[in-house]
Amino acid sequence: MKLTKEQLQEIEDQQSQSNNTKRVTAPELEKILYEAIPILDHGFIRVVDYMGNDSSIVQAARVSYGKGTKKVNTDAGLIKYLMRHWHSTPFEMCEIKYHVKLPIFIARQWIRHRTANVNEYSARYSILDKEFYLPASEHLAAQSQNNRQGRGDVLEGEQAKKVLDSLKNDAERTYGNYEQMLNERYDGTVIDENKIGLARELARMNLTLNTYTQWYWKTDLLNLMNFLRLRADDHAQYEIRAYAEAMLDTLKKWVPITYGAFMDYRVGGTEVSAKGKNIIQKLINGENISIEQSGLSKREWNELMTAFDLKDKLI
Amino acid sequence: MKLTKEQLQEIEDQQSQSNNTKRVTAPELEKILYEAIPILDHGFIRVVDYMGNDSSIVQAARVSYGKGTKKVNTDAGLIKYLMRHWHSTPFEMCEIKYHVKLPIFIARQWIRHRTANVNEYSARYSILDKEFYLPASEHLAAQSQNNRQGRGDVLEGEQAKKVLDSLKNDAERTYGNYEQMLNERYDGTVIDENKIGLARELARMNLTLNTYTQWYWKTDLLNLMNFLRLRADDHAQYEIRAYAEAMLDTLKKWVPITYGAFMDYRVGGTEVSAKGKNIIQKLINGENISIEQSGLSKREWNELMTAFDLKDKLI
Amino acid sequence: MKLTKEQLQEIEDQQSQSNNTKRVTAPELEKILYEAIPILDHGFIRVVDYMGNDSSIVQAARVSYGKGTKKVNTDAGLIKYLMRHWHSTPFEMCEIKYHVKLPIFIARQWIRHRTANVNEYSARYSILDKEFYLPASEHLAAQSQNNRQGRGDVLEGEQAKKVLDSLKNDAERTYGNYEQMLNERYDGTVIDENKIGLARELARMNLTLNTYTQWYWKTDLLNLMNFLRLRADDHAQYEIRAYAEAMLDTLKKWVPITYGAFMDYRVGGTEVSAKGKNIIQKLINGENISIEQSGLSKREWNELMTAFDLKDKLI
Amino acid sequence: MKLTKEQLQEIEDQQSQSNNTKRVTAPELEKILYEAIPILDHGFIRVVDYMGNDSSIVQAARVSYGKGTKKVNTDAGLIKYLMRHWHSTPFEMCEIKYHVKLPIFIARQWIRHRTANVNEYSARYSILDKEFYLPASEHLAAQSQNNRQGRGDVLEGEQAKKVLDSLKNDAERTYGNYEQMLNERYDGTVIDENKIGLARELARMNLTLNTYTQWYWKTDLLNLMNFLRLRADDHAQYEIRAYAEAMLDTLKKWVPITYGAFMDYRVGGTEVSAKGKNIIQKLINGENISIEQSGLSKREWNELMTAFDLKDKLI
Repeated sequence: MKLTKEQLQEIEDQQSQSNNTKRVTAPELEKILYEAIPILDHGFIRVVDYMGNDSSIVQAARVSYGKGTKKVNTDAGLIKYLMRHWHSTPFEMCEIKYHVKLPIFIARQWIRHRTANVNEYSARYSILDKEFYLPASEHLAAQSQNNRQGRGDVLEGEQAKKVLDSLKNDAERTYGNYEQMLNERYDGTVIDENKIGLARELARMNLTLNTYTQWYWKTDLLNLMNFLRLRADDHAQYEIRAYAEAMLDTLKKWVPITYGAFMDYRVGGTEVSAKGKNIIQKLINGENISIEQSGLSKREWNELMTAFDLKDKLI
Repeated sequence: MKLTKEQLQEIEDQQSQSNNTKRVTAPELEKILYEAIPILDHGFIRVVDYMGNDSSIVQAARVSYGKGTKKVNTDAGLIKYLMRHWHSTPFEMCEIKYHVKLPIFIARQWIRHRTANVNEYSARYSILDKEFYLPASEHLAAQSQNNRQGRGDVLEGEQAKKVLDSLKNDAERTYGNYEQMLNERYDGTVIDENKIGLARELARMNLTLNTYTQWYWKTDLLNLMNFLRLRADDHAQYEIRAYAEAMLDTLKKWVPITYGAFMDYRVGGTEVSAKGKNIIQKLINGENISIEQSGLSKREWNELMTAFDLKDKLI
Repeated sequence: MKLTKEQLQEIEDQQSQSNNTKRVTAPELEKILYEAIPILDHGFIRVVDYMGNDSSIVQAARVSYGKGTKKVNTDAGLIKYLMRHWHSTPFEMCEIKYHVKLPIFIARQWIRHRTANVNEYSARYSILDKEFYLPASEHLAAQSQNNRQGRGDVLEGEQAKKVLDSLKNDAERTYGNYEQMLNERYDGTVIDENKIGLARELARMNLTLNTYTQWYWKTDLLNLMNFLRLRADDHAQYEIRAYAEAMLDTLKKWVPITYGAFMDYRVGGTEVSAKGKNIIQKLINGENISIEQSGLSKREWNELMTAFDLKDKLI
Repeated sequence: MKLTKEQLQEIEDQQSQSNNTKRVTAPELEKILYEAIPILDHGFIRVVDYMGNDSSIVQAARVSYGKGTKKVNTDAGLIKYLMRHWHSTPFEMCEIKYHVKLPIFIARQWIRHRTANVNEYSARYSILDKEFYLPASEHLAAQSQNNRQGRGDVLEGEQAKKVLDSLKNDAERTYGNYEQMLNERYDGTVIDENKIGLARELARMNLTLNTYTQWYWKTDLLNLMNFLRLRADDHAQYEIRAYAEAMLDTLKKWVPITYGAFMDYRVGGTEVSAKGKNIIQKLINGENISIEQSGLSKREWNELMTAFDLKDKLI
């Protein structure tokens, strides 16, 4: 990640602000506010605003349940209770806003989370930066042979080199032609004063999907956790997981109690089907149960045993 | 509006906070943060948190349009442009949270605005306060004779007195029976130590719709404006309009530039249909146009003439 | 449930339609289309329209995963896979619309599900029917002593009679005064020709929360399942559960394969936290684990043991 | 647009269905159901399912307003009234589902409409088709010189040829390298049996933004109209407008009465600000008003005059 002089100045200006407020604050998050946290080769996330903290969740829950919540002595106890029982609306009372720089093919996955507010840099109006994502060699994975959406071993040697060369050359060539079509370079200089360039909204179609874009992305805490649960998961594509993991750190700084409950009940937890419950119960009671009797497919059986780390029961 | 000692103490505690933040603030809104603004006879609104100010809208718009926005010199010019052209997403970058006390029949209208986060006091868990809305005599309007959802003249004399007596007596009697069913009074004292009361989730059904409830209600600035446009309008029921008008004041303190654009383009503006445009154009050009030629119904014609305050053209 | 002559005629007219369509259909659901299924004392649900069936989910999933789904041989296998792995968007491709008659205090719970389309009978425009919910004696439960939102034993004898009398009398009295305020009876007859009644939007506030209202409620299959998961659950209030259970039947007729997967993975399933997984694993491996070592609260421990029906491990 | 044999067969199979239903139908829409309507060079839209018709809107409105709607004699009158007064919820009672093939850079604009259900072909699982959008020469517009997001004159001669060549060559080269990285051609044949290709989720990043993708897209009638209002507008990019215009035709076949009201009040209509109303009123009354007195900027003044086709008043 390389920031321009203007960006560095903007961040410094933002960080040097010191305002007084009667609102609740999140002191650990304040420390990293506006900071650009590097992701991948040219990307970043920055927390640029937030609203509320753990106490806001407790406050909202107590208005809902009224005197009914007095029995739960501690804020942590109440937040854990809410998380466990999917009493989700109090978590909507907090809000966070990120500034994110990310490759377009990742932006396309990300935007499928609809319950968020977004302002993206528009290539109809402005020229995109000359920055493309090129995977580090340890992430240059082969297609998994047994999982349609997964990755297998890392490519090596000549094949790896060829892939990286292609990605680099194609991105540079298409970007170069993008500039030619626009009759304008990424730094704003005109190429041929006697020509008018192609409309920006058209020229952008020549760019490859690893070109970086950026946006402001704002969501509430509940929907942030829904996002992180899916995108910080092992099944998520590495490139979006890299963002999600950095965001998990910001979650911890923002709402540490909620973060703890989230890691225990959601990220670290699992779901068990009605049939699965029956099997677990029998296993605990020392009964033997075969996959045939279980009513599960082989795949489902293995998912269940993996969830409880029962490696000797894998088939 | 009468606040309990505990509520007054809570507000004082909240207002005496003074935290440091690097976030942007809205100084005029800070001045009234947490304050209970009285609405109707027992209701209130309180701004209890917010995120962003006018500058957040500008910041988001500038990320979208990039260098494309440099030509618009001022923040006010940009915000007006966004409002006029329904470039609505930058307005979603600000968020506000209210604590509201309101009669249930108004809460039922309000909740139809779905793009908001809500935590309502739950009568499944706790006993509702003994407070009912009784209209002031100047709001005790008769059914309009020509508008199915409107109000006509104010009721007077004996009829008004009878209505108010009924509302008061019925609310008090049903609330009294609610306490009897619960075997518990609103202040928490048990009525008969030898009995267990009816489940709260059932007893509440005996209350009348003018009983007050309360909630935390959080929304973004765009959806707040959608709410206010409909609910601060003349066609809205007076009781919800009273809330919307107080919220307009908080909008002004929060985002004064946006407030100005909103009043000009939305609240004070009007929409004209294709047929209507044609008529307006002819009128400007000094042509005569009759309602028959216009293609409008009488009702539509009058709505158009009223919108432009052309009283002599009403039919 | 008593339907008016007009309603019966409307249902008969709707049911006697026979249209040709190239759209997919759900034959079992067609059989009960428009039928009023009675709920509580005066309520009902009616399926009045739908879009798609199990095959629509499969079709959408196959477009997403392309050739990647060819390995999953059967539609049932694919739908189960989607359900298990929270690949939820294909379930949004089906839509259903209900006509529901329900007490206002239940409507207030129901409306909190925001991802739905609603048109409710408006008491600003029209007079509400003279119908109130009175619980059957077996549902007249006392407040639970150990669960703030639960029900305990059923009330009996004199106390039960008194509660029912209060509910009935209060509803009738407030409705009678509602008519007086309106100067109009529920059947449309004017009470005093020389008077104009109170505005409907005001008079309605005198009604009790057990008064019935009605609405059209439309949602997609994913959000319907979210609704049913919460509202057909044991922790839901009986009165809304009565609706949810009838809707589960319609789900079965509409999308039988999805219904099966939903019952297995969602309704009959459970969630286990990270700590809970650890405990289950130890129990299966025959290790002893005490609540102290588990890191769980007593309440959480018991919830876990109950989920797996391990009664001898309850504390 | 060239469909594969399999696609043609699928469409024929779907169109030859003839099912009986008690649901309401839209006969004109049934005629084109499943048909692939060509858009741009390789794209299409197909209506693949729908729910409701004009009568569903009327039905929902009449449940809301009850006897209050009896005065509006005709369905058309009621629908026009609803449209004019932004009584928008009855329009949510209809639903439509499209199958769309479109270039990725257009898909990125389209997806910003969040209130819709989407299943997109996933390039994590499957190989994208070898099809790229190349603008017809009459759409190869230069960047507008006075509008940051607009198009100017069409490029001609050598410059046009060069742009088209670049677009074509870059798309073909990057697609070719995509196949090399995958070690698999678009038709599924393996390139080198001794190698495993790069993971699909990575290789896709080498494609250009004019590559075609496809999705199922489902929305309700209200949100469809919001989409069409923005995307069939002159300010929309030509490429998305081409889709929106074809969808307008399907709207007309589906809900002809709503279509008429939509064209009159939304598409053909305009909004006038508070200041604008004042100016229009003065112009009608024959008063002179200068731009200085108006309080409008030059740009805003010209927008107002253009809206009412008052060309002699442009500045």
